[in-house]
Amino acid sequence: MQAEIISIGDELLLGQTINTNATWISEQLALIGINTVQVTTIADEEKHIIDSLDNALKRAELVLITGGLGPTKDDITKKCLAEYFKTELEMNEIVLAKIVDYFESRGREVLQVNRDQALLPVGAKMIPNELGTASGMWFEQDDKIVVSMPGVPYEMKGMMRESILPQLKNENSKLYYGMVYTQGIGESKLAELIRPWEERIENAGLKLAYLPSPGLVKLRITSTEGDTIMVDELCRELKQNFPKLVYSLNTFSLAKVLGEILKYSSSTVATVESCTAGSLSAMITSVPGASEYYMGSLITYSNEEKMKLANVSKETLMEFGAVSEQTAQEMADGGRKRLEVDYCISTTGIAGPDGGTKEKPVGTVWIAISSSKGTVARKFQFGSDRSRNVEMTCLTALNFLRNHIFGYN
Amino acid sequence: MQAEIISIGDELLLGQTINTNATWISEQLALIGINTVQVTTIADEEKHIIDSLDNALKRAELVLITGGLGPTKDDITKKCLAEYFKTELEMNEIVLAKIVDYFESRGREVLQVNRDQALLPVGAKMIPNELGTASGMWFEQDDKIVVSMPGVPYEMKGMMRESILPQLKNENSKLYYGMVYTQGIGESKLAELIRPWEERIENAGLKLAYLPSPGLVKLRITSTEGDTIMVDELCRELKQNFPKLVYSLNTFSLAKVLGEILKYSSSTVATVESCTAGSLSAMITSVPGASEYYMGSLITYSNEEKMKLANVSKETLMEFGAVSEQTAQEMADGGRKRLEVDYCISTTGIAGPDGGTKEKPVGTVWIAISSSKGTVARKFQFGSDRSRNVEMTCLTALNFLRNHIFGYN
Repeated sequence: MQAEIISIGDELLLGQTINTNATWISEQLALIGINTVQVTTIADEEKHIIDSLDNALKRAELVLITGGLGPTKDDITKKCLAEYFKTELEMNEIVLAKIVDYFESRGREVLQVNRDQALLPVGAKMIPNELGTASGMWFEQDDKIVVSMPGVPYEMKGMMRESILPQLKNENSKLYYGMVYTQGIGESKLAELIRPWEERIENAGLKLAYLPSPGLVKLRITSTEGDTIMVDELCRELKQNFPKLVYSLNTFSLAKVLGEILKYSSSTVATVESCTAGSLSAMITSVPGASEYYMGSLITYSNEEKMKLANVSKETLMEFGAVSEQTAQEMADGGRKRLEVDYCISTTGIAGPDGGTKEKPVGTVWIAISSSKGTVARKFQFGSDRSRNVEMTCLTALNFLRNHIFGYN
Repeated sequence: MQAEIISIGDELLLGQTINTNATWISEQLALIGINTVQVTTIADEEKHIIDSLDNALKRAELVLITGGLGPTKDDITKKCLAEYFKTELEMNEIVLAKIVDYFESRGREVLQVNRDQALLPVGAKMIPNELGTASGMWFEQDDKIVVSMPGVPYEMKGMMRESILPQLKNENSKLYYGMVYTQGIGESKLAELIRPWEERIENAGLKLAYLPSPGLVKLRITSTEGDTIMVDELCRELKQNFPKLVYSLNTFSLAKVLGEILKYSSSTVATVESCTAGSLSAMITSVPGASEYYMGSLITYSNEEKMKLANVSKETLMEFGAVSEQTAQEMADGGRKRLEVDYCISTTGIAGPDGGTKEKPVGTVWIAISSSKGTVARKFQFGSDRSRNVEMTCLTALNFLRNHIFGYN
């Protein structure tokens, strides 16, 4: 079954409200095997609503509409639907009684605009709204389904959970997908690396999608035939073959994955940060309960603080500079000693936009890890964008530590 | 001018990625007087891409497309556009040279799929991408404009800011707007506070928009008749009347505003962070050139580190707890001494989701500032969301310091 979502509301087109409703609905539909093929976001405007619905029904068997059911003048969805399905509005006495009760129990006057919310199209099934006053509507015509819901997220979600999803679930649920989360490789390089594996995916009739986000690439393998075994096997295989790159099959947050490893091994971590200036520590502590393995950090932005707080020697800074293997190593060692942790990560680099030289251009970053296994440092070359360089450094550092702990080299 | 946005990407239809690109683009277009009438979100599927573009061009004069320009097989936007505009792809040597340089400067191999990104449709204007390898494309036909951009948000935003918005801006020369950036007050409370001022805006034929983002509320006053004097005057007036809340009339970044103040007064700042765990320092250093006034910080997540690094006394922690006025003050004082700065900000609180008590529920945060003027601490009550509490604490701390420096109480 193919679905489309139509989101109605001026506020969605002015950059003031992010359309999270459509994202949530498509996620819920995917989980019961219904594929969303288009989301259309439009204003409360009659002709546009009717045209969008008409077009959607040409492509999809199911159209879910949110928004435009409020009591104010600019909410016209119900009227448009009645017109489209060539029917009339009729007072639903049960709904009216509930609306009257809703207002009276809150000590508020029932206005005519509120009563009018009980006017519903003849021939449509009413979908109860336990959390508000606008009822949903379920139309069926020529084997196609059109559902109209309020735009208020929690009212819409309540309706979906209570009435709509259970009804749709009966159809079929053959869609299944698996995820592979990677760090440390770009989208195109990854595609090159896993080409033989990708061919097997295609041959098995599955679909592969690359979903890059800054510093990470997610892979999604989808089966439309409910081939759970094949999907799971292919995901696991990738993790086995590329353990340095694949950090998880179910968790997007690299900080959370690392946190689990630290908790499991009863280890502690700290950071000594220069170019990331606290972002690495913030990423580690974005996980609730991080205090089990994280106690504190030193941010040593200036050379002086590198010496004073992390005990980096003046000679090292003079001879090799702040952005160097030696400085990174001394920062990590000094931090591990001072903060008494099992693992200490240091970062030092040129975040940009200024400060680059020919030998050390903007984006040059050294990351070091100090542990009982020794001290290792690696150089990375990121790009020219300051905040992106910081984010890339943080994600790279977390995966570097994960690999260091597991002994992957 | 009417615009439509077409967002292309499978991930947008599976509930895994929220379409923030479309929201951002429609906001930017609104700022230059261009009305977005529809957002269409579709998968990387040829027929659907071409149909959507064809339909959009029937309604709008400007169509902005994001996504599907990556190097992998499922990215097919460029091919579809060439087909739609009945043109061919041709190797752009300038773009190719940039791509080769991009990879080589990072010590990475240039693959054929990367080179293919320099294949661009004949007749389209190339839009440079300073932050990635996929060029944008600008098509014109029958007085209509079609622009294609990458889906990676920061690449798309870079392109919009550098090339596309300036070009579109020339269209609407009479539109003028002023911004007022506030911190420390919610949207509805602010509306209450400035009601008389808001009435004057309406009477002057101007338009006011509230643009809330986490921890901040932006106000935008727009004149469609080029009434620059009135707009500027109304903005300035608000800044004069509410100096604690209004931190700028031209800069969204509170860290940048504070940085200018610190630079101007040749002062230095440091942080001692518990609940924010580096985020405050990261925010301060998000501004290029922050090293002029920022040298380093202490992150004291555990009680032990609060004692060891920031010299908080054991008695204080025992008697008042880590989240208390006294601890916050000692953290700020200890940090100022150890890091030898003019201003030291400390944060200690319960970020959540766990760790709250009846007396100190989740969201309770103490912020203190230590300076030669003395040490002041204030308690704040934020919400239940961990990452939002951290962000609110950071923004509140920066504005707290701004007000402390200016002596606003």
